[in-house]
Amino acid sequence: MATINKLNHLISHLNLAAKPTVAAVWPQDTSTLNALRRALNKDMVNVITVGCAERVTKHLDRFIGSGSLTVVDADTPEAASDLAVSLARQGEADILMKGLVKTDVLLHAALNKEHGLMTPGNVLTHITVGDIPQYDKLLMFTDVAVLPCPTLAQREAQLRYITRLARSIGVATPAIAMVHCSEKVDERHFPVTADYRELAARAARGDYGDCMVDGPMDVKTACDAHAARVKGIKSPVAGIADALLFPEIESGNAFYKAMTLFGEMRTAAIVCGANVPLVVPSRGDDFRNKFYSLALACALIVNP
Amino acid sequence: MATINKLNHLISHLNLAAKPTVAAVWPQDTSTLNALRRALNKDMVNVITVGCAERVTKHLDRFIGSGSLTVVDADTPEAASDLAVSLARQGEADILMKGLVKTDVLLHAALNKEHGLMTPGNVLTHITVGDIPQYDKLLMFTDVAVLPCPTLAQREAQLRYITRLARSIGVATPAIAMVHCSEKVDERHFPVTADYRELAARAARGDYGDCMVDGPMDVKTACDAHAARVKGIKSPVAGIADALLFPEIESGNAFYKAMTLFGEMRTAAIVCGANVPLVVPSRGDDFRNKFYSLALACALIVNP
Repeated sequence: MATINKLNHLISHLNLAAKPTVAAVWPQDTSTLNALRRALNKDMVNVITVGCAERVTKHLDRFIGSGSLTVVDADTPEAASDLAVSLARQGEADILMKGLVKTDVLLHAALNKEHGLMTPGNVLTHITVGDIPQYDKLLMFTDVAVLPCPTLAQREAQLRYITRLARSIGVATPAIAMVHCSEKVDERHFPVTADYRELAARAARGDYGDCMVDGPMDVKTACDAHAARVKGIKSPVAGIADALLFPEIESGNAFYKAMTLFGEMRTAAIVCGANVPLVVPSRGDDFRNKFYSLALACALIVNP
Repeated sequence: MATINKLNHLISHLNLAAKPTVAAVWPQDTSTLNALRRALNKDMVNVITVGCAERVTKHLDRFIGSGSLTVVDADTPEAASDLAVSLARQGEADILMKGLVKTDVLLHAALNKEHGLMTPGNVLTHITVGDIPQYDKLLMFTDVAVLPCPTLAQREAQLRYITRLARSIGVATPAIAMVHCSEKVDERHFPVTADYRELAARAARGDYGDCMVDGPMDVKTACDAHAARVKGIKSPVAGIADALLFPEIESGNAFYKAMTLFGEMRTAAIVCGANVPLVVPSRGDDFRNKFYSLALACALIVNP
C-alpha cells in the first residue's frame, strides 16, 4: 500500500472489505459521539455502545453508511468497561474506545488476569502518530501517557508494536530512533543508552521485524538530516525517523505537549499490547483526535 | 524596567553605563567571531580573546563602537580555558564565552576547586531563554544540557537563578512551572513530584526571592490558559508560565530540540552558578544564538 503522510489520508487508505467493530465505553461526551457518527458515516466501522444508552440513541439516531449500531446499556463506567472487555474477548469487538470513563478504569479491566485482554509477555503501551506541518512524514512516538519507564523487555515490545503499526500506515521498514539527550552511549550516567545499544543490535538481526533501529540520538538528529550531517552522525535512521522511542514518559510527554501547543501537531493515538487496540483519548482531546485515533485503530485491524 | 518579550529587544534594554568584559575562549569559529564583532559594534562589551590570536586579529581588525579588544594567545583550548577562568577570578572578565572548545573543557576549568569559579553551595546549570512565535512572552527553561537529574538542593539553586535571570529581562515576579507529565503528586512512582510540592511550599514562604512556583503540571497546562481551564487547574502559574523547570535532562532536551526544529523557537542560553555567567553554545548553534546568548549574559550583569 501507499505510504500515508497525513492523518487525513488515513481514511481513504483503509482496506474496508470487512468493517471492524468498535465497542465504545460510556460514550457520554459529544466529541466521542461525533467521532463515532463520523466513522459510521464514512462506512468505516460497526459500533456497539456500552452505557449511556439514552444519550447515544438521541445523538446517533441518524447516520448514513452501511455499518450497524448496537446500543447496550450499563449502570456504571466500571460495568461498561468490564462488558466491553468481555465483548472483545468473545471476538464481538475488534477495537475498544473510551468515552467519558477514566483511562485507568478501562485499562484496569483490560489488564484483569482472568477476564482481561492481555497475552502473557505483552505490555500496554501508548503510541501516538503525529502529523507535523514541518515534517514530510507522519511521526510515531512512544510512550507519552501509559508506561512510565520501560524495561528492556518492554522496549522490545514497543519496537514490535511500532513496526506493526508502521506497516498499517504503509511504512514497510520504519526508521526508529531511540531518543536521548546526546549520541553517546554512557552506561554509568544513562543506563538507558546501554539498553539502546543492545536493542539496536537485536533489531539488526531481525528480532523486531522489518525495521531500522538506531540510537541514542536526540530529537533533532533523528528528524533533521542537516543537523545529523553537521554532527557527523552516520546512521540509516538519523534525519529521517518514522518513529521516536522516548527514554521515559517525562520526555515523551514534554515532546507531545510542546508539539501540540507550539508545533501545530495533530495526533492520533492508540494503546497497543492488549488483544485488541484501545483508543483512549484524554478529556482535553478534540473530536478530530478521537476520530483519527479510531481510524488508526481501524488501520491496524484491516490493513496488511 | 520594561518586560522583554522578544530576544531582539534584549539589546535596546541593556543598561550599558558600564560595559561588561567578555573573555572569549579559543574563538576560532566564524560564528563566535561574528557574535563578538556584532557585540562590539553594538557597543555592548569589551572583549578579551584567549587563544587563536592570529585568526582573531584578522577577523576582528575593524569594529565600530567604543569597547576595547584585547588579544591574548594560548597554546591549547585547555590552557585558554584556564587563563580565561583566572581572568574572571581576578575580576578582569565579567563573562566567559566559549568558542571552538569542548564545553566539558571550559566547565572543568570553572569547576576546579582551587582555581575555579565556584562558590560552595552553587551548582552549574544551563538556562535557556526561548523566543517562541506562538507564545506572547519569553520562556525560560532548565536544564537541557548540563545537569542530568537535579537533586532537591540543585532545584533550589535553579529556582534562584531563574528568578535572578527573569529580573534581568524585566520579569519582576516570574511564574515558574515545575514540569511533570501530570498534575498529580505521586511520590511512589514519581519522587520528583514530592520534591515539587516541597519546593512550591518553600517558594511560597519566599526562599527563592520574588517568584511564583507551582507544579507538578505538564507543559501545556503551564503555557496554555485554555488547557489549564479545561483541566480545572487553579494555579497562579498555569497558563502563563515565564519559566519551566524540567524533571531531568531528557525531557528538557526533547522539549528544546522539538521547539527549535518544529516550533520555530529562537534561543539564547547561559550556564549559571559560577561566579560569572558562562556562554557555552553548541557547535551546531548559529551566529544569532551565540550573539543573543552573549546579550543575555550582559543583561544578567548590567540590568538590575
